[in-house]
Amino acid sequence: MRSIQEYQEIISVELDKFLEEVKGTELYAPVKYVLGLGGKRMRPVLTLMGTDMFDGKLPDSYKSALGIEVFHNFTLLHDDIMDDAPLRRGSKTVHEKWDVNAAILSGDVMFVQAFTLVTSCRTEYLRAVIDIFNVTAIEVCEGQQLDMEFETREDVTLQEYLEMIKLKTSVLVGCALELGAVLADAPKEDSRNLYEFGLNLGMAFQIMDDLLDVFGDAQVFGKQVGGDIITNKKTYLLLKALEEANESQEVELRKWMSNSVQNPEKKVQAVTAIFEDLQVKEAANQLMEQYYKKALDALGRINVAPEKKAYFKGFAEQLMKRNH
Amino acid sequence: MRSIQEYQEIISVELDKFLEEVKGTELYAPVKYVLGLGGKRMRPVLTLMGTDMFDGKLPDSYKSALGIEVFHNFTLLHDDIMDDAPLRRGSKTVHEKWDVNAAILSGDVMFVQAFTLVTSCRTEYLRAVIDIFNVTAIEVCEGQQLDMEFETREDVTLQEYLEMIKLKTSVLVGCALELGAVLADAPKEDSRNLYEFGLNLGMAFQIMDDLLDVFGDAQVFGKQVGGDIITNKKTYLLLKALEEANESQEVELRKWMSNSVQNPEKKVQAVTAIFEDLQVKEAANQLMEQYYKKALDALGRINVAPEKKAYFKGFAEQLMKRNH
Repeated sequence: MRSIQEYQEIISVELDKFLEEVKGTELYAPVKYVLGLGGKRMRPVLTLMGTDMFDGKLPDSYKSALGIEVFHNFTLLHDDIMDDAPLRRGSKTVHEKWDVNAAILSGDVMFVQAFTLVTSCRTEYLRAVIDIFNVTAIEVCEGQQLDMEFETREDVTLQEYLEMIKLKTSVLVGCALELGAVLADAPKEDSRNLYEFGLNLGMAFQIMDDLLDVFGDAQVFGKQVGGDIITNKKTYLLLKALEEANESQEVELRKWMSNSVQNPEKKVQAVTAIFEDLQVKEAANQLMEQYYKKALDALGRINVAPEKKAYFKGFAEQLMKRNH
Repeated sequence: MRSIQEYQEIISVELDKFLEEVKGTELYAPVKYVLGLGGKRMRPVLTLMGTDMFDGKLPDSYKSALGIEVFHNFTLLHDDIMDDAPLRRGSKTVHEKWDVNAAILSGDVMFVQAFTLVTSCRTEYLRAVIDIFNVTAIEVCEGQQLDMEFETREDVTLQEYLEMIKLKTSVLVGCALELGAVLADAPKEDSRNLYEFGLNLGMAFQIMDDLLDVFGDAQVFGKQVGGDIITNKKTYLLLKALEEANESQEVELRKWMSNSVQNPEKKVQAVTAIFEDLQVKEAANQLMEQYYKKALDALGRINVAPEKKAYFKGFAEQLMKRNH
């Protein structure tokens, strides 16, 4: 296994090579822009990690790994149109910098590029790669659909929320890892367990993300604390609170969620106080631990040397300790 | 070979089966709607024809053929957003019936469905199928980009126009045929020639489409004569006229193209008169014949029985005689 930084370096070099070959026409300007905005490139790193876990030839996985990153960035591009987001990674979104049409069409062509890259693998693995990737791509679209529906729905259940974050985010984490394993000719059961590891780690990570928004250290986290509360985002915490609230608590929560609130700081304080009364932090921590344990259990079932498993366990620990 | 109607019937049955299996959630409602609007299903018919030309097992091509139709409908769905089109096949477009977000996301998921269907072929042909399809899908996006750019550009050349219609429309005709041939294990050279046949027939068809808009019989054609002239669409005829016009003719053309024109009928008459003075109809007919001949030449080079070639020649004749 290599260090995360080494994997990131490989992806960075491959991405640069890819971008150099992309045509200079107007259609591709947003593609180059979006892929140049940076990011931690975690998904393609996971693919490379998956290949190294089973001692595959790492360069055989470069293009498919990059395809996962291009796919992820395509989803961000189209999601930003749908959410009417002005900024992405601190820069203007494509539909703001160009226009909606450019964002739609450049996204579409990125989608084809993603398919092309993902399927640029050894032909013997093509069927398995396509099957995993297509199912995941469908699921990611379904997740985005649920996320959009939730914005206008007042009756979202916790179960539905968990389904949404699974589809929108976690399945791609599992897919990225499994692809890497498949390209290293891993036994089917092992590659499925690696998928399970990624899926459940993704779930734990999302719940941690919800927790950090409210209970995290603003300085470490790098975001305004309570951002989700201010925008009434239907997070695990809010949905759990609505589920656990007695009548008066629910009335108060709904009052703070109404549009008439003028003082965001006061709103964050008041809603956080309700969260604390209802012990939603504890509930979220518990669920996060459950997913984390499921992830480690799946990892434990994989038939590889203990030092490989230790590497992935260390990675999971690192990922989940970003608030410490 | 079967009759076109028989091929259409096969596609209709396969499409119904496919739609029955599509989930009933909100995401898929526009998918079912768009695919239910009808159409001649010519592209998947071409795939089946390609398979029959080389005596392949026809059912082995059903899913890939359907994938070509789903892909085509996905492009229509996203193009209609970009063109802000209110109607498609006489019904409301998806972004009008739902909204832009639904049209973007349902289009995206259709795109994945198209990939899934196209790649639902025998594994031995997977690499060839993916290579053809991905290249074509990229080209179709590039064609749409050019088409959008042309709307606001005043210096579009004839050469650029031909490149645009090739990318936006003709390559998919070639791709549909070639996929069918590949799935019947046709020799590489034969399947490439079948692609060339489709590509050039597609070009001839597009130029005929431009011609019919101005010089066609409204009753047979089923559209208002001169629609392209009224909307200043940069067709082969208009671009050729602008290229051939002397100074005063160009001034007159540009005057009619300006937004201040109040009387559409008079505009159609006047522009048609300039077209006739400049003999653009003859030039278009000549170019159309050139593409048609190229198509038949490519057909002639394919190593199949004469009766197969006769079938495809008859098909081409039928296609190009819709104004007679």
